[in-house]
Amino acid sequence: MKRIPVSELKNHIGRRVKLQGWLHNLRRMGRVNFLLLRDRTGLAQAVLGKEDLAPLEGLQMESVLEVSGVVTAAPPAPSGVELHNVELGVITPVTEILPFELNKPDVAATLPVFLDHATVGHRHPRRRAILRLAAGITAGFRKTLDEAGFTEIFSPKIVASATESGANVFQIDYFGQPAYLAQSPQFYKQIMVGVFEKVYEVGPAFRAEPHSTTRHLSEYVSLDVEMGFIEDHFTVMDCLSDVIRGILTYLSERCAGALETLEVEMPQISESIPWIYFPDAQQLIYEREGIDARGEPDLAPEHERVLGEWAREKFGSDLLYVTGYPMAKRPFYTHPDPANPIYSNSFDLLFRGMELVTGGQRLHLYADYLTAAGKAGLPPEACEAYLACFKYGMPPHGGFAIGLERFVMQLLGLDNARWATLFPRDLTRLKP
Amino acid sequence: MKRIPVSELKNHIGRRVKLQGWLHNLRRMGRVNFLLLRDRTGLAQAVLGKEDLAPLEGLQMESVLEVSGVVTAAPPAPSGVELHNVELGVITPVTEILPFELNKPDVAATLPVFLDHATVGHRHPRRRAILRLAAGITAGFRKTLDEAGFTEIFSPKIVASATESGANVFQIDYFGQPAYLAQSPQFYKQIMVGVFEKVYEVGPAFRAEPHSTTRHLSEYVSLDVEMGFIEDHFTVMDCLSDVIRGILTYLSERCAGALETLEVEMPQISESIPWIYFPDAQQLIYEREGIDARGEPDLAPEHERVLGEWAREKFGSDLLYVTGYPMAKRPFYTHPDPANPIYSNSFDLLFRGMELVTGGQRLHLYADYLTAAGKAGLPPEACEAYLACFKYGMPPHGGFAIGLERFVMQLLGLDNARWATLFPRDLTRLKP
Repeated sequence: MKRIPVSELKNHIGRRVKLQGWLHNLRRMGRVNFLLLRDRTGLAQAVLGKEDLAPLEGLQMESVLEVSGVVTAAPPAPSGVELHNVELGVITPVTEILPFELNKPDVAATLPVFLDHATVGHRHPRRRAILRLAAGITAGFRKTLDEAGFTEIFSPKIVASATESGANVFQIDYFGQPAYLAQSPQFYKQIMVGVFEKVYEVGPAFRAEPHSTTRHLSEYVSLDVEMGFIEDHFTVMDCLSDVIRGILTYLSERCAGALETLEVEMPQISESIPWIYFPDAQQLIYEREGIDARGEPDLAPEHERVLGEWAREKFGSDLLYVTGYPMAKRPFYTHPDPANPIYSNSFDLLFRGMELVTGGQRLHLYADYLTAAGKAGLPPEACEAYLACFKYGMPPHGGFAIGLERFVMQLLGLDNARWATLFPRDLTRLKP
Repeated sequence: MKRIPVSELKNHIGRRVKLQGWLHNLRRMGRVNFLLLRDRTGLAQAVLGKEDLAPLEGLQMESVLEVSGVVTAAPPAPSGVELHNVELGVITPVTEILPFELNKPDVAATLPVFLDHATVGHRHPRRRAILRLAAGITAGFRKTLDEAGFTEIFSPKIVASATESGANVFQIDYFGQPAYLAQSPQFYKQIMVGVFEKVYEVGPAFRAEPHSTTRHLSEYVSLDVEMGFIEDHFTVMDCLSDVIRGILTYLSERCAGALETLEVEMPQISESIPWIYFPDAQQLIYEREGIDARGEPDLAPEHERVLGEWAREKFGSDLLYVTGYPMAKRPFYTHPDPANPIYSNSFDLLFRGMELVTGGQRLHLYADYLTAAGKAGLPPEACEAYLACFKYGMPPHGGFAIGLERFVMQLLGLDNARWATLFPRDLTRLKP
């Protein structure tokens, strides 16, 4: 008999079928016992007599089983069906007791305990739902951009120099010479605008964060976009708005089960995502909360929270662009605002009062790069290979990067980015 | 006026339109001159009088231009149309002469010269086509697996120990302690079979190859698959065959332009991809070519070439599975052939006589792992975090990995894997 997935059970009422999966739960009631089997598509209930339990003698949860039985309507059971006249086979016996229970509504472990045992902990239905959403965000990102004519690229992660910022970079021993792990595909995606005009990349990014915070990881998945022939940063923001909408639509359509498991409140997006100019944002924070950060070159997390509340109240929007950050705090490749070069043609996208995306227009003239790199104290040889392409004609361009874990964290209201990824890397954690 | 892409020109005959792109070629004939403009969708020809050329005075190829004109039918021009009554604007002037010409049918540079200037060299239409095919292979891979119910995962690339093979691994300085770059997501994808049953990953893999060959890179893109509840390695081969077919279908449907530019001869695939058992393959090579490698634990490139010719002749197939490689040369997690444990439940897929994919069934019992790791001389602590999940119920499972650059190389008949990727990394090359 061919195995069927649990999700198809309800199409087989009255027939004998074969399931394979993990022993998720067993309620022993004496003469009648209820076994829950988990496969990648869901949970199935099998009803067993006392004597049917013999094969499970001495076995623990997560044993891998083969369960055959007759599909019978049973409204209170998962999907409204259960298996009767059951035959049990053991594929892989488990005798070890789990580090924490996987069949309770919530993960029954603190974050450090969970992470130590994440290789099995991710089997918990809530963990599986979170990881599925991460895959869905990525798929929605790609789908939106594929349909808009973007080309996917794969840039190298081992690089010759720490161009973007000298600090926070991991050094590697590259056949006896020093090399570094890419902090982002920034330079490569810009280069590739010269080739394909519109490109994206999904890949790991590495930051040697020397401090431990709830929202930083040493390794994360970066969803990167870069596009040419833009007017200014507002062209890039239009693209980002489409991407965010595309991701949310994809999740609603393709990850409904995971959204339900996690009881996700989907973000409110107004027709067009509102934006506020950086100095105006500081003025607003001052007037609203009496916090005077006017003239400071960046927003603190507290400021972002205030702006998030304001956007929700005023526009009914969980998303808000802040535009025109001062040049002083943006990377050297940022394009200044031609009308007021103290400010930049850049933006952050705040999601529920936390920075989710950073982006903007970049410099595109070779001479401007030489000046800017010099001002930033970057030795020309550090970015020479990168700058070369600007000698050969680059159009006005810009882009953005979304941190996948940050997106998951904010969407689900998680209190730590470590809950939003598979096997997080931080100051102290390298395993599993 | 809104910019239109070159590919839409033919829908605007008789109307004035605006294009933006790169100066790809300029044929000066005196009174009548032909300008070729390149954008991401193709090449457009504009006809200019002598006086119209003034804005291009002193400019080189690859200058970024805005070209407006009236679309006019012209059968010999690209797409059968050209622009008349042209107005030229310069967006980004180029005064530097290109390191090699981009408007000749072939890339006019040797491999080392090309790689030194790849940031601009990739703009050559043939290079763009190759990179588009790489993106298409990846997209076809994902599409096939998404439709088959696989879940995408993102595993860490910084790992605590070089579990798979102690050699050929890059060491990094991880906050003062040693760590390594992942040689493959092998352990993680196996772990995730316990969570999702069927998973895939597209990501970078790192090998510190201490020798320089035409088919190895220090960093490459690995297309990884792992699946549970298999019968044996033949279940995995069925999945791989579907993936290869899915990729080729995707390329035919979605990358037709790139296939045409590169004059690709698509692989011959027979109804079901043929396979040959390892010892039989050695016997065949002996009988066919007099090369006696019987009893050797692996196939040499020369042997693979002979088998490729045989498969083409006998089955009309560019693809051939070799099954049952001796355990001696397979990694410690390989599942032995239960009927003859000297051999393994593993396979290689040869594509035109070169190994393209390696895969097989893995061990799934904790006790078997302890024995195998011990035999392989692996210290238990090296893979303890990885092995833990095998205590908690893993089904029989297996998988495979496709090297993206290898696939591109073999599909196009390139003589070096370095031609098949964006910015290759090898013993001596770290830039750009």
